[in-house]
Amino acid sequence: MLSNPLFKSNPQLYVFVPIFYAVWSDAVLTPSEIQEIRSLIDSQSWLTNEERNFLLANINPAAPPTPQEFKSWQEEINNLSSELAAGKKDSLVDIGLKLVRKNAIGSESDALIKAIPALQKVENTLGIISRESAYFISSANHPTETEKLTTQSSFDVNELAKILDGDQAGIIRKVKTIISDPSFEFTDVDNRKDYREKVLEWCKHLAAQGYGAMAYPKAYGGSDDMESYFTIMEVLSYRDLSMVIKYGVQFGLFGMSVQLLGTEKHHKKYLEAIGKLELPGCFAMTETGHGSNVKGIETTAIYNHNKKTFTVHTPHKYARKDYIGNAAAHGQMATTFAKLIVDGKDYGVAALLVPIRDKNGKTLPGISIEDCGRKMGLNGVDNGRITFNQVEIPKENLLNRFADVDDSGQFTSPIASDNRRFFTMLGTLVGGRIGIPRSGLSASKKGLTIAIRYGDRRKQFGPEGAAEVPILNYRTHQRRIIPLLASAYALHFALQHLTQRFLKRTEDEMQEIEALAAGLKSFATWSTTKTLQECREACGGNGFLSNNYIDDLKMIQISTPLLKEITPCLCNWWPKAG
Amino acid sequence: MLSNPLFKSNPQLYVFVPIFYAVWSDAVLTPSEIQEIRSLIDSQSWLTNEERNFLLANINPAAPPTPQEFKSWQEEINNLSSELAAGKKDSLVDIGLKLVRKNAIGSESDALIKAIPALQKVENTLGIISRESAYFISSANHPTETEKLTTQSSFDVNELAKILDGDQAGIIRKVKTIISDPSFEFTDVDNRKDYREKVLEWCKHLAAQGYGAMAYPKAYGGSDDMESYFTIMEVLSYRDLSMVIKYGVQFGLFGMSVQLLGTEKHHKKYLEAIGKLELPGCFAMTETGHGSNVKGIETTAIYNHNKKTFTVHTPHKYARKDYIGNAAAHGQMATTFAKLIVDGKDYGVAALLVPIRDKNGKTLPGISIEDCGRKMGLNGVDNGRITFNQVEIPKENLLNRFADVDDSGQFTSPIASDNRRFFTMLGTLVGGRIGIPRSGLSASKKGLTIAIRYGDRRKQFGPEGAAEVPILNYRTHQRRIIPLLASAYALHFALQHLTQRFLKRTEDEMQEIEALAAGLKSFATWSTTKTLQECREACGGNGFLSNNYIDDLKMIQISTPLLKEITPCLCNWWPKAG
Repeated sequence: MLSNPLFKSNPQLYVFVPIFYAVWSDAVLTPSEIQEIRSLIDSQSWLTNEERNFLLANINPAAPPTPQEFKSWQEEINNLSSELAAGKKDSLVDIGLKLVRKNAIGSESDALIKAIPALQKVENTLGIISRESAYFISSANHPTETEKLTTQSSFDVNELAKILDGDQAGIIRKVKTIISDPSFEFTDVDNRKDYREKVLEWCKHLAAQGYGAMAYPKAYGGSDDMESYFTIMEVLSYRDLSMVIKYGVQFGLFGMSVQLLGTEKHHKKYLEAIGKLELPGCFAMTETGHGSNVKGIETTAIYNHNKKTFTVHTPHKYARKDYIGNAAAHGQMATTFAKLIVDGKDYGVAALLVPIRDKNGKTLPGISIEDCGRKMGLNGVDNGRITFNQVEIPKENLLNRFADVDDSGQFTSPIASDNRRFFTMLGTLVGGRIGIPRSGLSASKKGLTIAIRYGDRRKQFGPEGAAEVPILNYRTHQRRIIPLLASAYALHFALQHLTQRFLKRTEDEMQEIEALAAGLKSFATWSTTKTLQECREACGGNGFLSNNYIDDLKMIQISTPLLKEITPCLCNWWPKAG
Repeated sequence: MLSNPLFKSNPQLYVFVPIFYAVWSDAVLTPSEIQEIRSLIDSQSWLTNEERNFLLANINPAAPPTPQEFKSWQEEINNLSSELAAGKKDSLVDIGLKLVRKNAIGSESDALIKAIPALQKVENTLGIISRESAYFISSANHPTETEKLTTQSSFDVNELAKILDGDQAGIIRKVKTIISDPSFEFTDVDNRKDYREKVLEWCKHLAAQGYGAMAYPKAYGGSDDMESYFTIMEVLSYRDLSMVIKYGVQFGLFGMSVQLLGTEKHHKKYLEAIGKLELPGCFAMTETGHGSNVKGIETTAIYNHNKKTFTVHTPHKYARKDYIGNAAAHGQMATTFAKLIVDGKDYGVAALLVPIRDKNGKTLPGISIEDCGRKMGLNGVDNGRITFNQVEIPKENLLNRFADVDDSGQFTSPIASDNRRFFTMLGTLVGGRIGIPRSGLSASKKGLTIAIRYGDRRKQFGPEGAAEVPILNYRTHQRRIIPLLASAYALHFALQHLTQRFLKRTEDEMQEIEALAAGLKSFATWSTTKTLQECREACGGNGFLSNNYIDDLKMIQISTPLLKEITPCLCNWWPKAG
């Protein structure tokens, strides 16, 4: 084609060469490509009829260019490389105009300048984004990973981090520093026993730094800082999801049940030991037969007025406490939910502190504990099943903020209705529904970081004979990943909003906040599941390898109507693989 | 309410009792519930004004029924239990009419009969399905798993199985029998080394039964039966997905590359040993730098005419063969894809048989192999990375159906164009794109079976004070699971169609069949991923426990543009948990 005398007489024809090259590079001309280019050529009044027919002959699908011809176009473009290297963002039209200038030894005509918008429109319609055209200019071998070029940020990352972290920047930095310590290095999670011990050790490190008691009153060694408690959960999630859940079970579910369902006598006796992880404990609510439907639990706590004790009992095997974090290995005490029976009358669900192991980890009489075994993820958390066989505990062990028995053996409560008392109790625990989606969002953020970095460096396919293109440049890839990135930002601010509303709540707002928390927990963790699946796929086979981390990130539990400790599980801090 | 004299004078009012009971059972009356019931009551011409106002007073959200009143409604309904027990499908209206008959000691009036459609409409609008109303009649304790009642099939399961299995029923039954043998019991997949040996052993069992050579020509110990080969992959997937992939790598990717890319000399020398798993082998196509873009691979195979050998070489680390199944532990030979260089000229991608280990499993000189390590799933498959350092192999090891070197050292091929030769070679391997989605669909089927059975038995929540309802009765649950079940059926027949088209293909149809296979592989495996996530969620925390199997089923690799052995991974045959 280029040898045709028409190119000599009108070098402006060179403007079409990159377009022909691009459409023929996949060796297939689609009907819409033909139509687009045909109408472009037809509408160029600066072309002679002869030129027009000559150009149209080049988009005849029945007469593709010969390999030699195609190669000659490529060479023509490659000859420009010195001029193109500087501006990597040349579009096909830019390249075409450079060809015109080079061959015309002068600038393009006014007529051609007027044609530029039409040419650009065709280029856009053809779906060739400008960055890709840079990959036309290449020689043979460009194995992906040898070029470590990645796209530079077009904004100040630190400024964005300030907006995301807000006034929590200090605690975020501190917790990141701690978990970046070599003692928090990823271990072999295949070995469940060692993994559980490691996770316990990590939580003890955190407790030693005061992060366990963070939300407890200052009188009991805490900082009275619930906002930081949520932030800690969020940051820990970048490192290991089993650690987050163990942390949440001990200091959140167990500790806060003592704090919020108990009264001063319980706080004095237990909170400091809980915050220091000297008293590892459980939150024994769920039963085998009753997960979401907590009101249906069947464990009984019968008051014995003569002895001032309660007898806690599992009436049948479906009433055993199930899926209880910290139960299979480490817990020494359990906040146990049971039907409170006083003088033969059932007063609905109440919570009592039941010792389950001694200081040496030996299971106490009347208690039997079974290990839940291997799970999809979170194998650093020791979930177990607890059965109580007529276990007698002192009356003081009833967490008596909302339900109590007076000295005369009468049931008393500030809330008369069993039903309202039940929902008030559960309402105090809504914080768990905030920590979990924030933890899941951290997993999404980490997965997206891995997948986007990978996509920016991993190259695959490209124009015939030219270098390969980073997979992130493919629109399908962008359309799969970028909306999820946008969702992650949106969820970040949504969960910040929820956190702030919860922290500044009034009694009146509680119902709305609970609904918001339940909804956002579901929505956010579903989003995490979807995001991590896409991230896995976006990393191809590499996403399937455990040492690239998406593996364990993917083990996300979808929200359930009630607090469950069976949530995410993840591994490390930054991706090893590039 | 029931003590009101109006009930005595007009017992037909009883028809409203179950509806009041149902709407108040969650203690919340929504605006639309109020509106629906109000307009129902307003439109009943058989009511007196006094009766109408009396009824309307019962849907005042500011004046909910007292607990005693609510309990009296429940008792009224429970008293019917003997009449209701027989017909479990009573609707609220049915129950209401029975109350009317009982209290009127006679049948309902014509006016009331005319009102039935309006009553039913309200019932439907309220979203209470008829089966659930059966759960109104109950006493206190109905822990889920103690009642082993599950829904009976309303069709002949064997007839449906006949339609699904078709003429493959025989081989399906045989393979199911083999893999139900105790020697195929699930082992501890945490121990990767043992798991890999176990999977190899299973494949040897299958080979010994003739299932390895199934698709090979009869002359080489095979049965010339590609259809059964696909069926075997499908059935093995019910048991263990690592086994399927190991089977597919050895007998499919490796064996069929020898069969389809090689010629008679290769068939004679290798096929029988491959089918018996005496020669474990690999399919070494993917490189670190080039996964999907096979045309870009950089391993070279340079012909040495003086010695009649090829030198196979990995020019740099991104050109190593990556993610190769059977490479890390067991493979002794690899079908190796490389750029064929003859007399200094590059003839594009060809395949050669390169020995990588001796009979004792010792890696041969010039070969280095690295283990890919732990993956999200499929840990019973030994994926590895192979690097060739100037490895010399005899000329005969070139799989020479499409590319050869003649005695004078000239390159020859029945297909002149390098490009067309490349796509013809890959085209012969399209079968892999049929086996993988069929394997993934088996994982979906197993997950759905587990989730639906669980949903039919697991009960949670229910009307106030009454028995809990199987979660499968909840419409949200049905709407999550049943469309996926329908998709699984549709995909079953779609993949059967694809299989048949492939088996009966003509040369002309190949392009369409390849497109269909690529599309269905993506669509079906995405569907598997989605299905198993829903199944996991539908089983709640139980779905997260490894011993309930969904765990490993979920490890599904999405289709990639080319054959990849990194697909599903699953465990066992039938769910342990109920």
